[in-house]
Amino acid sequence: MVLRVEKKCSTEQIAQVVREYAGVTRKRAIGEIIQSLRIESDNVIVSFGEDAALIKNNEDGLLLAADGIWSMLMEADPYWAGFCSVLVNVHDIAAMGGTPLAMVDILSVQDENICHDVLRGMADASRKFGVPIVGGHLHPDSQFSAVDVAILGTVKPDEAIFSHTAKEGDRIIAAFDLDGRVHPSCALNWDTATLRDTETLRSQIRMMKTLGERRLVTAGKDISNPGVIGTLGMLLETSKKGASISLSKIPRPDLAKAGIDFYHWVRMYPGMGFILTAEEKNVAEIIRLFSEVGITAADIGEINNTNLLTVKYGDMESEVFDLGEEGIMHLFI
Amino acid sequence: MVLRVEKKCSTEQIAQVVREYAGVTRKRAIGEIIQSLRIESDNVIVSFGEDAALIKNNEDGLLLAADGIWSMLMEADPYWAGFCSVLVNVHDIAAMGGTPLAMVDILSVQDENICHDVLRGMADASRKFGVPIVGGHLHPDSQFSAVDVAILGTVKPDEAIFSHTAKEGDRIIAAFDLDGRVHPSCALNWDTATLRDTETLRSQIRMMKTLGERRLVTAGKDISNPGVIGTLGMLLETSKKGASISLSKIPRPDLAKAGIDFYHWVRMYPGMGFILTAEEKNVAEIIRLFSEVGITAADIGEINNTNLLTVKYGDMESEVFDLGEEGIMHLFI
Repeated sequence: MVLRVEKKCSTEQIAQVVREYAGVTRKRAIGEIIQSLRIESDNVIVSFGEDAALIKNNEDGLLLAADGIWSMLMEADPYWAGFCSVLVNVHDIAAMGGTPLAMVDILSVQDENICHDVLRGMADASRKFGVPIVGGHLHPDSQFSAVDVAILGTVKPDEAIFSHTAKEGDRIIAAFDLDGRVHPSCALNWDTATLRDTETLRSQIRMMKTLGERRLVTAGKDISNPGVIGTLGMLLETSKKGASISLSKIPRPDLAKAGIDFYHWVRMYPGMGFILTAEEKNVAEIIRLFSEVGITAADIGEINNTNLLTVKYGDMESEVFDLGEEGIMHLFI
Repeated sequence: MVLRVEKKCSTEQIAQVVREYAGVTRKRAIGEIIQSLRIESDNVIVSFGEDAALIKNNEDGLLLAADGIWSMLMEADPYWAGFCSVLVNVHDIAAMGGTPLAMVDILSVQDENICHDVLRGMADASRKFGVPIVGGHLHPDSQFSAVDVAILGTVKPDEAIFSHTAKEGDRIIAAFDLDGRVHPSCALNWDTATLRDTETLRSQIRMMKTLGERRLVTAGKDISNPGVIGTLGMLLETSKKGASISLSKIPRPDLAKAGIDFYHWVRMYPGMGFILTAEEKNVAEIIRLFSEVGITAADIGEINNTNLLTVKYGDMESEVFDLGEEGIMHLFI
């Protein structure tokens, strides 16, 4: 693993590409929506701002999440879009320390060939992760092609991993499966899931459940379209905390071999990646557990009581987000 | 309640309008999709072909369904589209004899005003049915406007109502809330839900759970876009049965007052409508229970061992679907 940042790396430039990246800016409309939809409900333990909602059902915890695929991706590669529609949903449950049970899909189809490829991608991912698609809805006469998936999972409420529970002084761990490739159809996707064998893939998903059961982490989130720094920003916003991270410590593949630079890497959606926070005493054990399932994890920084996410490299330090000022999702406006 | 069919009613014409109605024809692509997505899973009790999938979780039964809104409706009336996105999902759980717990939504937004109206409709319906929206996904930069919702519910597995369990000799019951109006923006929607008070509406949803608990029905389905006859066709296809129904017995509002004819009524999506099958000895009790919550139910015909759905009126009889030949959803090809 190469941990050296290229010489040309500038913290200010990193801050700028992360801030201006569409994966981040497109999250801004979320806050307004949440305000209008929130209603009181006794059995909802957490909802918006988390990777999945946690609902109490007797003594059980049920997880419910939904994720859609960018139309950009549908057009670029329908098979990969179908595969990702399952991948991102399985990650939403894994990020909560849960076990995925079943999915439903909503498919809007304009072109029969696209439809066929999307379904093939969904079916392959469903088989690979061992999570069945059990129903859904079809818009056969749509003017556009889109695929959305919702997922049901379970977790014991006291073993769930949340986004809103990071504490001052916690260490920040970034965890990636680095054994992958830039996806041929989508330069911003780091694909590991189509390459890994079924058992490794499922053990990676189960590892988050193990971390939850053993109470090793204080908070966690799967790394999604906003990339590693953007996703940390969302976790901080939900936790109402700040953080300082060292760019040189972020795990990365052999960038030269992958044909990308570090600016590109921090904006990527990794096929298997998580941002976690933990007490310092648990960091080594977390990194060890991840390494058992082929995931490279590293301590990249610390949670603090500011509203700022800052990135450091050598003597340079730059602010990426002032979460008190604006936030990413506008969760608390 | 007027039970007389207009003089001009022809069974052949009814058969034709139901067969050719887009609400029915657009279901045809479903079968192919199901074939490609089905994977073995021990804890999935039922999946495709039912209003919701039933998944075993320890001793509990979990229901998962997803439903989207026609783009036609999104364009015609975004508020009503948002309201309906919740309504149809709550119906999916009710039809299974279940209790709705929580929903997630996926919203694709092109225009901010449309988005605002959709959200208002969803929030109003969520409050009225008492089912919270707990998360979801937003496509803020979409080239189209669409709203999809997925819903989680619970039901005891031995009290669930299925679509595939109708038996030869069962009576067929059609149940509607007739106290409504043709929706001002959508002539094919019979709106009762925005007019009914919260308590009546929730008691109507709970009635399906009561029928399941008391094992009064053998099968059931909520009446969706294909209308009362098209929905019965889907139930028959799933049950691998046939049926003969009397058009004159289908409950209907005062059609003249509503400004529609019977051909229109049978193609409508009712705000609260169910097709059920039951042993003859339970029919009177089912009709009585429905009447307690403002729903008009009637025995409209009988399940048989053919593959045909036929409609009768006076001396006339016409075949609507040969479900052995083609089916509606192509479930078993």
